[in-house]
Amino acid sequence: MTRPTQERALRTREALMHAAAEVFDEYGYAGAGINRILERAGVTAGALYFHFKSKEGLAVAIMGAQPQQIESKLTSHGLQRLVDITFVWAHELQVNPLLRAGVRLSVEQGSFGVHDASSYLGWREIMAECLQVAEDDGELLPGAHTEDIAEFLVGACTGIQLYSQLVSARRDLPERTVRMWRMLLPGIAPSETIARIDLDVRRGEGT
Amino acid sequence: MTRPTQERALRTREALMHAAAEVFDEYGYAGAGINRILERAGVTAGALYFHFKSKEGLAVAIMGAQPQQIESKLTSHGLQRLVDITFVWAHELQVNPLLRAGVRLSVEQGSFGVHDASSYLGWREIMAECLQVAEDDGELLPGAHTEDIAEFLVGACTGIQLYSQLVSARRDLPERTVRMWRMLLPGIAPSETIARIDLDVRRGEGT
Repeated sequence: MTRPTQERALRTREALMHAAAEVFDEYGYAGAGINRILERAGVTAGALYFHFKSKEGLAVAIMGAQPQQIESKLTSHGLQRLVDITFVWAHELQVNPLLRAGVRLSVEQGSFGVHDASSYLGWREIMAECLQVAEDDGELLPGAHTEDIAEFLVGACTGIQLYSQLVSARRDLPERTVRMWRMLLPGIAPSETIARIDLDVRRGEGT
Repeated sequence: MTRPTQERALRTREALMHAAAEVFDEYGYAGAGINRILERAGVTAGALYFHFKSKEGLAVAIMGAQPQQIESKLTSHGLQRLVDITFVWAHELQVNPLLRAGVRLSVEQGSFGVHDASSYLGWREIMAECLQVAEDDGELLPGAHTEDIAEFLVGACTGIQLYSQLVSARRDLPERTVRMWRMLLPGIAPSETIARIDLDVRRGEGT
């Protein structure tokens, strides 16, 4: 492809991802009509099938796009970076349709016959990397198992957002995330580390 | 109603709950055909609509029946009871279709247009009661907030079973539950209490 053609293809792909995310977030997978997505994206059915093969392919792409909604907004390292990932995530879930749709589709995937752990495994990888840096820098308790902590965190965050969604439409998710860290840190890090960690949830707003 | 009629009605209701749980667990809400449920329960459509009004009513009843699958199997108190709830739950999720269906429907409820927090709130209540006993018995750290811990646990357990389901069809859930407690207990209880808590996951098998 020539460069202008490539750029146009990329723009079309992004328009489809964003339009589909809004529709999936609002209506769920089953309720998301292809025509509604195409209309909102302003593209043809041919473009959708060229980029994603199917509605299911589009859903899987959106599930996989979660981490990139977060990582570009981070500047910290080690354990603070891990905390900040959850704070940015809790904030973005209020405002970012692509992340909201990714989380909803990942949780409800069983209802449309998809069984894809890769979005969870992607998060585990990112969190385990932060924990590895934290361990190398002596921020963790001796014997802390970075992979176990990362896997638990992915599960716990998935569950607390589901709970928060049902009781407060996710408005209390940032505060729940802070409380999670207050409970978890003593089992992960020594008190000298904990004293250095900033648990101000506004860190997630990127202001 | 006369007593035999009442007993027959109760048996019909239970047969419907169990048959529907098996079908929901296997096919999800959308894929669970009413006829398949009726056939497996050996009852008429009239009985279903008499007892549950609709397929949605049946799903909500199954979501709400989760705690009773667990509570009858508990004999411990306070913090150990809280731990045992999660161990019994992790074990029953391997073998008990009524619990499996309840959890699946609760997680996927958004996909069939239900927004019902009551199964989560039921769990929170039960866990908060254990934590209140634990606090009264001096088993918790000073300043531990029993409601916050209970709400976090409900969310965390929901999420770790979802993760475990995707990576191991829930086979590793009991071990994940033990690891959760190893991480969480230092943020909840003093070391004297932790030393007394039995984290042998076979406690959940009720043998």
